[in-house]
Amino acid sequence: MWLSCNTLQRFLTVALGCVLGHMTDSMIAPIAQSAQQRAETWFDGFEEALRARDVRRAAALFAATSYWRDLIAFSWNLTTVENPDGVADLLGETVDRTAPGRFTITEPPEEADGVVTAWFHFETAVGRGKGLVRLVEEGGETKAWTFLTTLYELKGHEEPRGWMRPKGVTHGAFKDRTTWREQRRQEDESLGSTTQPYVLVVGGGQGGIALGARLRQLGVPSLVVDKHPRPGDQWRNRYKSLCLHDPVWYDHLPYMPFPDNWPVFSPKDKIADWLESYVNVMEIPYWSGTEVTSASYSAEAGEWTVQLERDGRPVTLRPTQLVLATGMSGKPNVPELPGQDVFRGDQHHSSAHPGPDAYAGKRCVVIGSNNSAFDICGALWEHDADVTMVQRSSTHIVKSDTLMDIGLGDLYSERAVAAGVTTEKADLIFASLPYRIMHEFQIPLYEQMAERDKDFYERLARAGFWHDWGEDGSGLFMKYLRRGSGYYIDVGSAELVAHGEVKLAHGQVARLTEDAVVLEDGTELPADLVVYATGYGSMNGWAADLISQEVADKVGKVWGLGSDTTKDPGPWQGEQRNMWKPTQQEALWFHGGNLHQSRHYSLYLALQLKARHAGIPTPVYGLQPVHHTG
Amino acid sequence: MWLSCNTLQRFLTVALGCVLGHMTDSMIAPIAQSAQQRAETWFDGFEEALRARDVRRAAALFAATSYWRDLIAFSWNLTTVENPDGVADLLGETVDRTAPGRFTITEPPEEADGVVTAWFHFETAVGRGKGLVRLVEEGGETKAWTFLTTLYELKGHEEPRGWMRPKGVTHGAFKDRTTWREQRRQEDESLGSTTQPYVLVVGGGQGGIALGARLRQLGVPSLVVDKHPRPGDQWRNRYKSLCLHDPVWYDHLPYMPFPDNWPVFSPKDKIADWLESYVNVMEIPYWSGTEVTSASYSAEAGEWTVQLERDGRPVTLRPTQLVLATGMSGKPNVPELPGQDVFRGDQHHSSAHPGPDAYAGKRCVVIGSNNSAFDICGALWEHDADVTMVQRSSTHIVKSDTLMDIGLGDLYSERAVAAGVTTEKADLIFASLPYRIMHEFQIPLYEQMAERDKDFYERLARAGFWHDWGEDGSGLFMKYLRRGSGYYIDVGSAELVAHGEVKLAHGQVARLTEDAVVLEDGTELPADLVVYATGYGSMNGWAADLISQEVADKVGKVWGLGSDTTKDPGPWQGEQRNMWKPTQQEALWFHGGNLHQSRHYSLYLALQLKARHAGIPTPVYGLQPVHHTG
Repeated sequence: MWLSCNTLQRFLTVALGCVLGHMTDSMIAPIAQSAQQRAETWFDGFEEALRARDVRRAAALFAATSYWRDLIAFSWNLTTVENPDGVADLLGETVDRTAPGRFTITEPPEEADGVVTAWFHFETAVGRGKGLVRLVEEGGETKAWTFLTTLYELKGHEEPRGWMRPKGVTHGAFKDRTTWREQRRQEDESLGSTTQPYVLVVGGGQGGIALGARLRQLGVPSLVVDKHPRPGDQWRNRYKSLCLHDPVWYDHLPYMPFPDNWPVFSPKDKIADWLESYVNVMEIPYWSGTEVTSASYSAEAGEWTVQLERDGRPVTLRPTQLVLATGMSGKPNVPELPGQDVFRGDQHHSSAHPGPDAYAGKRCVVIGSNNSAFDICGALWEHDADVTMVQRSSTHIVKSDTLMDIGLGDLYSERAVAAGVTTEKADLIFASLPYRIMHEFQIPLYEQMAERDKDFYERLARAGFWHDWGEDGSGLFMKYLRRGSGYYIDVGSAELVAHGEVKLAHGQVARLTEDAVVLEDGTELPADLVVYATGYGSMNGWAADLISQEVADKVGKVWGLGSDTTKDPGPWQGEQRNMWKPTQQEALWFHGGNLHQSRHYSLYLALQLKARHAGIPTPVYGLQPVHHTG
Repeated sequence: MWLSCNTLQRFLTVALGCVLGHMTDSMIAPIAQSAQQRAETWFDGFEEALRARDVRRAAALFAATSYWRDLIAFSWNLTTVENPDGVADLLGETVDRTAPGRFTITEPPEEADGVVTAWFHFETAVGRGKGLVRLVEEGGETKAWTFLTTLYELKGHEEPRGWMRPKGVTHGAFKDRTTWREQRRQEDESLGSTTQPYVLVVGGGQGGIALGARLRQLGVPSLVVDKHPRPGDQWRNRYKSLCLHDPVWYDHLPYMPFPDNWPVFSPKDKIADWLESYVNVMEIPYWSGTEVTSASYSAEAGEWTVQLERDGRPVTLRPTQLVLATGMSGKPNVPELPGQDVFRGDQHHSSAHPGPDAYAGKRCVVIGSNNSAFDICGALWEHDADVTMVQRSSTHIVKSDTLMDIGLGDLYSERAVAAGVTTEKADLIFASLPYRIMHEFQIPLYEQMAERDKDFYERLARAGFWHDWGEDGSGLFMKYLRRGSGYYIDVGSAELVAHGEVKLAHGQVARLTEDAVVLEDGTELPADLVVYATGYGSMNGWAADLISQEVADKVGKVWGLGSDTTKDPGPWQGEQRNMWKPTQQEALWFHGGNLHQSRHYSLYLALQLKARHAGIPTPVYGLQPVHHTG
């Protein structure tokens, strides 16, 4: 346990320099007490203030610049409040009904660079929580600088795991005992006919599956539906050279980690087979070959009416809660271009690209310069195609090994595992970094990467590639959180561009001819194949398609932080818009993201749904207003 | 780590009383040095003696009554030698070629009842090992009482796990890259046609699968074949109420433990689905629907010629090594009785029993009184059949909860997990108990069980049930090791017999009539169904069927310890006959047992096969002589 603290400290030591620079000098004072004493004193004061319902006193325990991130424990929302005023606002509205207490430091706090970090547990009226606090000295007093509170279980609804695992058989002799297989079959047959799922999860990729597993564990009657014939087809059907760009330690699903022989970067078919096994092992009710054709909500009835086609036959379901887990990469953006109707070759969105096999010796034009574009260009080149990439705007590239080492290594790596940083701990450490200042943690990491791979970036520049580091130099992860696009994790294809093996063109596409792509500057690129690696739309496009434009607009843009950078307009939100939390449309939820997010945030989404199913009041603090419709 | 030692001590404290009673008083002397010092002194002396190749000096470090169990590290065999003479014999033959050294105590030794226990690592010329020693005082000196040495990896052939896991993708750009799926497909297509498996594993139950996974990890070209249509059918096809009688903590497969929501007692269909997923996830080359029709070995060619039918089509394979993993429960014993040809009802062996559904209201006679008999009687009773059990000889019964608590709880339970006893540690602790004295560890546990469930045994006796505790009172696990039969882990059906709900008859069956079973004493039991719950034959029956009677006789009886108790004739072997180790037939191996044994012993079998494949010399010490042909 000490080891993991060391790792946390190391992580912070790298990242904190710039952040602490923003604090006044008075915040960093000589330390008289031990880390343990300071943390205990702080928690004693905080708990006493909460017990007294003294919101001002509790808020005064936070630094002038401070962040409290709450994942449903106080707010029944994913929310971050800032500074003592924000803390006072959150507590003012929630402390009575939350009745927090029993704060317990769970391992020896550690100190570095004047910051004490402490893991803790706590309880509320309805549940049990975990958190991580970072304490600093300000005006001679110990104050919270960052404070993370998360709910992990509801009292009386603990998951049947470990000591509480099911027995599997009822010992004794009983007339008309039914077996596990018979029970599963009865359940399958009744679900959707004589019984209704409380939660309908649309989309059975990693997001829907992770959520389905948690809901199953929590005993919430749920159903995951997906249009593909088999679980895992979401990956299986993509271009054949695809491997995950995130490493295995980052990708575990809940409950069942990958075995330790799992490859660092999982091939798409291997992860697909894993997801299929996972659905089976975790007993997730899952309908393959099922498409949702429409959905509408009745506020009076408090339920959705959802029309589906299951294996071509119409079915109507009436779930109480509807989760769109159709994915960030679910709804392709295909540009409409003059001449698409006359082009004689193949043309398709990257999500429909079958792989390179048919294109040896062919002239291939790939429009776009992000992850999919590079992967597809690389695979086509490897199969002896003549490949041109059309770069329309600048892209951020980092080499995979560098990103793994500098960007993720302290939390998600074999090194982290050896140091005792469990996946759960890594997730909580990550979650404890406030979005408001996360870019400041990131910038120095990307400065290191730029330095390490200097030659590589020079080669790219010489080849004419437009490269950027994000508008504020904060790199890949912030681009992901803000806009979900604009980057490539280089696993080899960037060198092909740098060396001219994959040709590079620049600019917007004007039109297609019978056998070429024509750019706005008149450049003509002869083509037998055009791949639109042009990304995906906002997830509320799914709401527009499945429910209505009205509901899509009511919910507004999904994803992004409001950072006021490209494709992420302000105002500042403090959290990712509409993700894993209540939206302006009652009983409509969005779930998705990478495997890390699917794993971690599915917990909070599942607990929100469980609480509603169990009739536990869930008053929402700080429901997000809508500023952008899509 | 301390915690696990405590648990180990607790386990020993329970079990040791009786064993220490056998030692001379001089063995238990006041302890002057700390446990750590004594262990270090012992290892220093031992290592020095080994370095000097001074076999006498090394042997003198063992107590007058002592046991060294070696799992392939020194002996390339599973073998136990006894007392300084035995140690001298083993070392005399192996120390030069083994070149053991680098003995390292890996966690603080613990002491209880005058016994110091220490975990250690060591190295040999070709590999790395782990072990567990128990030290006592004898004549004022520290001597080894039990000494376990196990090999866990071969140098230069470490498994690709953790830090050494595969990358999954080769970063860069390469012409004609093949994907994971393509590689798997190529491998599938070539295996058995253009390439030959080095190892052919016959039988794809838990044993074959666990071994297949390890061989795959070790890079040994292997193939598992099984007659059933799907992996897991070995369980799936059995009677529908079947659940594992061993608890989940005892049942993990290598590499991929069950998730922590797995039921304590797995229903057969759930474990079947898990095995099927496991084959897929671990990428085990596995042919379903494949039966071996014959096999013969050519000593000149150094290979087997094996005829198979795969989906009805003949295939010939030429593996170098042949493993029979057809299971202890593979080859049914069906008694031949007069009148079987005239009996009008259903009759089948327990392994072919379809479950109770068709037998409501029918008169069912179950011949036998062990696990399967009780399970089947219970399920039939639950479905309103009229059930009679025919007890032919006495049976040992323990209640499941009692067995879990007293018999397994310190090593395989949630309590053990919480105390830091990993599965691997539990397996090694278990393996460290010498078979010669294991019954002495077991007897007091069963005395406790008899006391706890006194009322239950009285009820059984009143019902006329013939109950025993094993010939020496050592209970269930010893019966399992000695003869693999003669017991029932009560999950409820024993009470049905005790209360007369399931009727009880006694004696041997003389014959069947058109509609009854007739016992030797003339008792006639009217029957619509006869189930032969009459157990299974020795595994070398498989060798007789698949290879020849000559080879079966050459190999001799499989299973059992030579304890000179019922169905386990002497002389004493020290290890289980022919299991997981070289036999008198070159290149023929037996693998099987429960999930615990399949997990643990598959490691040593896999390493023996790997060493042969890699061309590492494997001179076998103490190859077992044959005393019984079956």
